[in-house]
Amino acid sequence: MPSSLVHRMPYGFGPSAGPRQGPDGQPFDWSDTPRRRAVTTSYLTDAALLGRLLPPGFSLAGEPVVTVEVQYFTELEWLAGRGYNTLGVKFPATFRGASDEVTGMFLAVLWENLADPILTGRDELGFSKLYAEIPEPRILRGKECHGASWLGHRFIDIELHDAREAEPPVPVGPATGGTLHYKYVPSTGNWGGTDIAYACHTPPGGSQQRTTRFLRALGTVTFHPTGWEEMPTQFHIVQGLAALPILEARGATISETRGGKDLADQRRLY
Amino acid sequence: MPSSLVHRMPYGFGPSAGPRQGPDGQPFDWSDTPRRRAVTTSYLTDAALLGRLLPPGFSLAGEPVVTVEVQYFTELEWLAGRGYNTLGVKFPATFRGASDEVTGMFLAVLWENLADPILTGRDELGFSKLYAEIPEPRILRGKECHGASWLGHRFIDIELHDAREAEPPVPVGPATGGTLHYKYVPSTGNWGGTDIAYACHTPPGGSQQRTTRFLRALGTVTFHPTGWEEMPTQFHIVQGLAALPILEARGATISETRGGKDLADQRRLY
Amino acid sequence: MPSSLVHRMPYGFGPSAGPRQGPDGQPFDWSDTPRRRAVTTSYLTDAALLGRLLPPGFSLAGEPVVTVEVQYFTELEWLAGRGYNTLGVKFPATFRGASDEVTGMFLAVLWENLADPILTGRDELGFSKLYAEIPEPRILRGKECHGASWLGHRFIDIELHDAREAEPPVPVGPATGGTLHYKYVPSTGNWGGTDIAYACHTPPGGSQQRTTRFLRALGTVTFHPTGWEEMPTQFHIVQGLAALPILEARGATISETRGGKDLADQRRLY
Amino acid sequence: MPSSLVHRMPYGFGPSAGPRQGPDGQPFDWSDTPRRRAVTTSYLTDAALLGRLLPPGFSLAGEPVVTVEVQYFTELEWLAGRGYNTLGVKFPATFRGASDEVTGMFLAVLWENLADPILTGRDELGFSKLYAEIPEPRILRGKECHGASWLGHRFIDIELHDAREAEPPVPVGPATGGTLHYKYVPSTGNWGGTDIAYACHTPPGGSQQRTTRFLRALGTVTFHPTGWEEMPTQFHIVQGLAALPILEARGATISETRGGKDLADQRRLY
Repeated sequence: MPSSLVHRMPYGFGPSAGPRQGPDGQPFDWSDTPRRRAVTTSYLTDAALLGRLLPPGFSLAGEPVVTVEVQYFTELEWLAGRGYNTLGVKFPATFRGASDEVTGMFLAVLWENLADPILTGRDELGFSKLYAEIPEPRILRGKECHGASWLGHRFIDIELHDAREAEPPVPVGPATGGTLHYKYVPSTGNWGGTDIAYACHTPPGGSQQRTTRFLRALGTVTFHPTGWEEMPTQFHIVQGLAALPILEARGATISETRGGKDLADQRRLY
Repeated sequence: MPSSLVHRMPYGFGPSAGPRQGPDGQPFDWSDTPRRRAVTTSYLTDAALLGRLLPPGFSLAGEPVVTVEVQYFTELEWLAGRGYNTLGVKFPATFRGASDEVTGMFLAVLWENLADPILTGRDELGFSKLYAEIPEPRILRGKECHGASWLGHRFIDIELHDAREAEPPVPVGPATGGTLHYKYVPSTGNWGGTDIAYACHTPPGGSQQRTTRFLRALGTVTFHPTGWEEMPTQFHIVQGLAALPILEARGATISETRGGKDLADQRRLY
Repeated sequence: MPSSLVHRMPYGFGPSAGPRQGPDGQPFDWSDTPRRRAVTTSYLTDAALLGRLLPPGFSLAGEPVVTVEVQYFTELEWLAGRGYNTLGVKFPATFRGASDEVTGMFLAVLWENLADPILTGRDELGFSKLYAEIPEPRILRGKECHGASWLGHRFIDIELHDAREAEPPVPVGPATGGTLHYKYVPSTGNWGGTDIAYACHTPPGGSQQRTTRFLRALGTVTFHPTGWEEMPTQFHIVQGLAALPILEARGATISETRGGKDLADQRRLY
Repeated sequence: MPSSLVHRMPYGFGPSAGPRQGPDGQPFDWSDTPRRRAVTTSYLTDAALLGRLLPPGFSLAGEPVVTVEVQYFTELEWLAGRGYNTLGVKFPATFRGASDEVTGMFLAVLWENLADPILTGRDELGFSKLYAEIPEPRILRGKECHGASWLGHRFIDIELHDAREAEPPVPVGPATGGTLHYKYVPSTGNWGGTDIAYACHTPPGGSQQRTTRFLRALGTVTFHPTGWEEMPTQFHIVQGLAALPILEARGATISETRGGKDLADQRRLY
């Protein structure tokens, strides 16, 4: 592989293939795959409580509307045709740095059910990825039940119903600004210190993703009581999300897409 | 939690509990748990090929003997009483930095079957952890079969036989020097660039681990053919290990221990 | 539930809901679900070897062509919207009993990745169901990789390539005759004796299954070496199938369907 | 294999190896394996409600005390050195048939986390086995948390605490009489009809099982709300058990054993 290839731990074995570099160091073809089915449910919450979840440099942008999104990916070329599932929580925010100011959707946490994309996403992109079990949905007589658990503890249920075919929406507001992240890695030995702490941006556009089906639905989100014994490394995240009141439902969507992008346009913000 | 607590991604939810800080920010009790059963198999290999697996600043120390170690942990207090399994590959090496010179066992790669300790270990300690399935061993008529797979692809088999009770050995040579690591995180956007790249050291001693049983055995290690399609993010690691010739068997061990330490003594080398 | 409801072990808790009786004892709606994606690969083999796999009363019918079929079910109403996967091996055969003579496809073995349909199918229908892991296929650049394993031992690989849209075929020959089975349960205590041993028949027709997509492809099947240590309860089955020579490929198919039937028309043959 | 060997579905591939016949048709060695860790929790319940769970021919014997037992097996020779876990519910009962009268512990249901012993146990022994996930216990600061789930729905929690070393008890009363079962397989096609319906008995004694450790503890059992959507084939069983009031705790035990028997002494009752 050429010298500018990306390494990940373990370093000594040479560059690591991943979403943005294949076994030959070249990018993958994202024109027709992956396939993806995604559901979202959104709700208005309390601005003050939501704002507490933002890292340094970030502030809320517009209405405090939380969107929970579950994605089921298959036929990912970078995984040699395999798939995985994700569950993300995002809301509109603005990052103001020394030189950059960007408004977009802040991705507060993204659970995934496979460790390898968790590691590539954390290390290379600064996505706040964690592990959870995210089983295929249960779909019965028009009702869809999605959710996630950690070592058997179900911490979130997402239910959709009354889905109807609709036109895919044209994004407006912060959703047009791409996705915002905060890359962070602590120091080793210097406990409490910081090795990496900076904002990142996934710019909008540049994707070959096309929507093949879109539906609007009604949806609900329920976070289940979760303490240290249930999720000893993640309980504070579930508690932080569960503390957000659901003031008003803002609708749900179901979409099916093909194609995408490798996020090589991910950039650090200054 | 006090202000010097360790954060991990996602940052915005506050400090994250982990092996070195409980839900109250305090350390855990490592005097009697975890329980741990470990097997090792060692073999002499080719020094030139082995040396290629070392990161910058490292060189081989003494004989090029590879040790493959499988560990089965239960009753881990920091996981609220759960367990997980690991499979590590290590060999003696010396790190020489601007001011530090340390000889110990270099941990080239450590597979674990649970994402949460993978993340705490990579981010906080600089351990080169990756995910693999590591099932409980198959133990039949005195033969033990250990191994690991990734999404169903079995990439290593480790077999032990002819085990006999023995005295736990007193470490000699590089094994007395603790464990060496290379913490590495790539830059975001500046592809091929580096956010973190430094050596780390787990000093020997300070552990409450005590051996309750020890056996010597004979053992073999087999790496199975693995290409990009089988392990699209890790094939180069399996291939790098499979390329090391097994020139001479150097014995196998089985040990059972209780207690340990939280590795808060992990330090960056300069 | 009414008195004619089906019981399964454990008997004492009352009738057990299953594919043919819901929680209220009523049948389910099979008009639009389940969704099903299925692939088949067929090959000509040796008649004498194939005939040995037939139970008493059965003989080969027409050409000795083996069909391996993998099915991925979702949205099964009787599982409250869940799904599961199956891998079956079948070939044309005739059952001649005291009064019945039926030619159809004999289902020699059907692996499934969920215990509950295994139990309902064995006990209620006489299907020769066993457990195996049957992961979602890996689909990469037009090649599909299907297969199954048992506790990590991959015993079969099925690969399809060069798929092209085609007209769904109109069944001819034995495939028009439904599916044949041999229900068998041994005696307890009287070892080697028999509690149940009779042929069963799934008649053709009566299904609401409709094909929404159909493709023809090329395909290969590979059985991997499997001994008692690898599959201590099933190795003889894999060995029996692996012993069948692949004399000539007979094509592969991919189909997507919706709807089905509950197999309440399953009948005992005499 | 000799002609009196046991067959199971699929019949056509010949006799099936299992707990009572190895690949050569011979019995296994049960003198030193399996290893087994078991916990039990018992409670007094309502006799009338408990009696409803009994199949035809059975009646309660003595006090209506329910025992929930979780077993973790490893090193099972008939599984070539693998293990599995079980969760059983039993209570004292008497079977009175035309010629047999036996008092023992009636095994109302036995969940196991592996399909193969479920099939051998149901078909060969008449054990009322079903599938559930039964993870390793969580053991934290003297408290043990056991339990089971079905496709992610946790339906039972069993907690033990205050364990103290004790003498293994000498069985008294119905526990000295072995274990009782009701083998049942429905008819095919003749829905509501019966192919097999008879009582079975596992006589006491004849086992090479020896106890290497025994503790007495306090324990609790909790069944969680479970409807058809949560466990569409088993909800009635969980509901039947959840309906039994816990009138008085009757203690808990922890035991570790080695060796056993293959249950070839299982017999049909008349």
